[in-house]
Amino acid sequence: MLVQLDRSSPVPLYLQISNQIRELILSGALSEGSRLPPQRELALELGVNRTTVVNAYQELAADGLVDATIGRGTVVRTLSRPASPETPSPLPWTEVFSLRTRFAYDPLIRDMMTLCAQKNVISFAAGVPAPDLYPLDEFRAVIDEVLAQHGRVLLQHCPAEGYLPLREWLAERMVERGAQVSPRNILVLTGSQQGLDLVARLLLDPGDVVIAESPSYLGVLQVFQAAGVRLLTVPLDEQGMQVNVLEQILVRSRPKLIYTLPTFQNPTGVTLSLERRYQLLALAQRYQVPILEDDPYGELRYEGTPVPSLKALDRYGHVLYLSTFSKMLFPGLRLGWLAAPEPVIERLVLIKQLTDLHTNTLGQWALTEFCRRGLLDRHLERLREVYPRRRDVMCAALERYCPPGTRWNRPAGGFYLWCHLPAGLRARELLAEAARRQVVFIAGEACHVNGGGQEWMRLNFTYHTEDLITEGVRRLGQAMEELLQRQQAQPVEALSLKPIV
Amino acid sequence: MLVQLDRSSPVPLYLQISNQIRELILSGALSEGSRLPPQRELALELGVNRTTVVNAYQELAADGLVDATIGRGTVVRTLSRPASPETPSPLPWTEVFSLRTRFAYDPLIRDMMTLCAQKNVISFAAGVPAPDLYPLDEFRAVIDEVLAQHGRVLLQHCPAEGYLPLREWLAERMVERGAQVSPRNILVLTGSQQGLDLVARLLLDPGDVVIAESPSYLGVLQVFQAAGVRLLTVPLDEQGMQVNVLEQILVRSRPKLIYTLPTFQNPTGVTLSLERRYQLLALAQRYQVPILEDDPYGELRYEGTPVPSLKALDRYGHVLYLSTFSKMLFPGLRLGWLAAPEPVIERLVLIKQLTDLHTNTLGQWALTEFCRRGLLDRHLERLREVYPRRRDVMCAALERYCPPGTRWNRPAGGFYLWCHLPAGLRARELLAEAARRQVVFIAGEACHVNGGGQEWMRLNFTYHTEDLITEGVRRLGQAMEELLQRQQAQPVEALSLKPIV
Repeated sequence: MLVQLDRSSPVPLYLQISNQIRELILSGALSEGSRLPPQRELALELGVNRTTVVNAYQELAADGLVDATIGRGTVVRTLSRPASPETPSPLPWTEVFSLRTRFAYDPLIRDMMTLCAQKNVISFAAGVPAPDLYPLDEFRAVIDEVLAQHGRVLLQHCPAEGYLPLREWLAERMVERGAQVSPRNILVLTGSQQGLDLVARLLLDPGDVVIAESPSYLGVLQVFQAAGVRLLTVPLDEQGMQVNVLEQILVRSRPKLIYTLPTFQNPTGVTLSLERRYQLLALAQRYQVPILEDDPYGELRYEGTPVPSLKALDRYGHVLYLSTFSKMLFPGLRLGWLAAPEPVIERLVLIKQLTDLHTNTLGQWALTEFCRRGLLDRHLERLREVYPRRRDVMCAALERYCPPGTRWNRPAGGFYLWCHLPAGLRARELLAEAARRQVVFIAGEACHVNGGGQEWMRLNFTYHTEDLITEGVRRLGQAMEELLQRQQAQPVEALSLKPIV
Repeated sequence: MLVQLDRSSPVPLYLQISNQIRELILSGALSEGSRLPPQRELALELGVNRTTVVNAYQELAADGLVDATIGRGTVVRTLSRPASPETPSPLPWTEVFSLRTRFAYDPLIRDMMTLCAQKNVISFAAGVPAPDLYPLDEFRAVIDEVLAQHGRVLLQHCPAEGYLPLREWLAERMVERGAQVSPRNILVLTGSQQGLDLVARLLLDPGDVVIAESPSYLGVLQVFQAAGVRLLTVPLDEQGMQVNVLEQILVRSRPKLIYTLPTFQNPTGVTLSLERRYQLLALAQRYQVPILEDDPYGELRYEGTPVPSLKALDRYGHVLYLSTFSKMLFPGLRLGWLAAPEPVIERLVLIKQLTDLHTNTLGQWALTEFCRRGLLDRHLERLREVYPRRRDVMCAALERYCPPGTRWNRPAGGFYLWCHLPAGLRARELLAEAARRQVVFIAGEACHVNGGGQEWMRLNFTYHTEDLITEGVRRLGQAMEELLQRQQAQPVEALSLKPIV
């Protein structure tokens, strides 16, 4: 029997020993029932510590290859082969799923996407830009040009961190908006959803505490749930996250991450005030908690003065800044980015590489060229003209068609109205009724982890043209009236409202 | 104080109670030091079991919001605010990384990609197709056409499971090759690397046992290491995985997954024989272990009769089949697919959605059209003419330029030669010497989890033209001669080879 140690190898010596003995056992060179050399003896022969051999033998025992008995030494195990011929049967897949994925995945996003893909449905549910405004001809021309000129390069792999000229353009853009970043701080993502997932992997272990706004983006709530963390929520008011409540939580728990959508928040449209931004950063600093700033809508302000991003105000590197081209340009490209301190980017690059090697190269090249030529800015100008008109058309239609008691806000940017239903209506019931009329929206409780939001709905105003918005709200109003009349005819069970102190 | 229970909500009653009391505490409505109602009393008032209230109070205690003391009841905690004004300091990022990502990520793939992106380097390292053969004009025409005709749709989102016509084309293709699959069995992936990551998430918990071939694809070995599993390896011979050794492992451990690259294996080029395929499936059946069949090279056979995939021979649904367009067409597109039983696909769709919502839509549409027009098949024919010539050129150059004792195989398909170095040479040292001459390859130990393979290298023969292959091997031969001469002049320490029994 031979064990051959390679002291220049990065593989620990105990593993070299156990691996080589394992092979001897599995190949039959060491037969069942035969004894391994005593630990002390083998250690001497190999010139290693006895602990090294002890560890090697423990590895083998953990594999079920050997038994260690006091007095008998370490013996190659005799196999108990399974009582054989069973009737062949299919694999019971759901029983072999990992424990970490056995929690209840919420199929809501998938179902919504499927529903919205149906023709004739007026969707206020999707968080997507207006396809009728797509700068299609410009993008087509750019793609064709980069393919013609650089096709053999851009259809190959690119580095996991992204195409350098795109990272340069993004860094420059962020510097223009006040953030101190260089291309080395930028990681290109397969959509910002990937950023949420990667950051969760990087920072969160099961049982950790994460803070998010309530309500918030349902896609991120699901990522956190899948990570097995404990999600604590901070309520919003018209100035954004209630920072005083946040401090109460920070004092009492040790969160690993604060997730916030500070600008034109999803679903409420609210923007965190400048004063609160400073307060939030001071808290992150004092309690040394990272902030994940999700900013898909920052460029889509229709009125008023821009507020700097948290990243732009971040003095000590507490902010991970996440954004995407999905709301500004095309969601189908799956292109987003994260701006973060270098140690974070370096680690995330290695994790990203394991998940998809890198983001698709063609999209990165085409987008870079599109942005460099000023075509993104031109498109954004167009959006900033059209979207507020759609928002106002939706507000007018709500005013006209919805029963008294319906309330909504009129956010200065972003994609959504956050709409409160008249007393007695529940968004889930309304959604069922509205879907029968080919209109869908997001029921508020999907944006809450703790079962709140039953009387709210999120209405997207960017996707459809003004005519369809008006028609959709008209149908929505009908559905509301219908439900209210039904309730008057047959009153529902009163809510259980009980004073307890 | 009000607790308002909603019995129609999916949120458990105890969480509704704890959430509402939490808000009251955090907002200051319930002040520090005040007492919550006794559990029994609150249970009576709300008409719930006492356990419900007990659980709610435990939640609050876990959040650090209340203290429960026998005799005093449950009291809102008094805060100990941190001793304040500290000097501001940057966040120590590496200390806040999650435990699950603190293991040693191997930057090898990233470093290789960076190295290969350098000009003038002859790379036998990358596992990529020949850019000079790209059907660029055809692909450009197809992209332009689909953008012109369907741009407003294909730049939007698509379902997480993938674009249906692509799933249909893939299913049809696999049926032609003997597998029983329908579009419902197909999940489109952002490259096959994503499939490895998703399958690891779906099936593996930390500490689980996974079986892989040794040597194997380094990207998958890293995914398994990141998942925290115990990787047991089965050696290969010229007929592929040694199935008799596999059975020994199956008897002794309870693996959750067998990962195999049965056709033109990476890195060895070996193909699992038909007989062993049946044996492997019988073992998977007997021990009810899923098989992940990774088949990126199946279409790239240059000689001999095709062997059916494991998926085509799979009678009871044990095989997850993974493949990609990265080796057949363009790696930069990031497009792969998984074929699997429906319960697996259904679950993976939900997981994928959390990681990147869906794979980029433009690529899926363009590829579908490209495949439907027969352009993929025409391109594959071309590759099957050119690649074997490059392989033979490489073999001839090895014969001509490398010192005696260098041995290699001549695989019937795929991308790689697996090459054994003359006695005394180590691949890592050779790589350093070769890199000085602008030639790189994959050192064999990168393909081993347990430190073997030091005398092997993997040489890709598809990426470069015949001239560059010859030139690269010539430099490689020089590097080998140089190292051997240096060793004769100054003999290295003899390997420690000690008999221990």
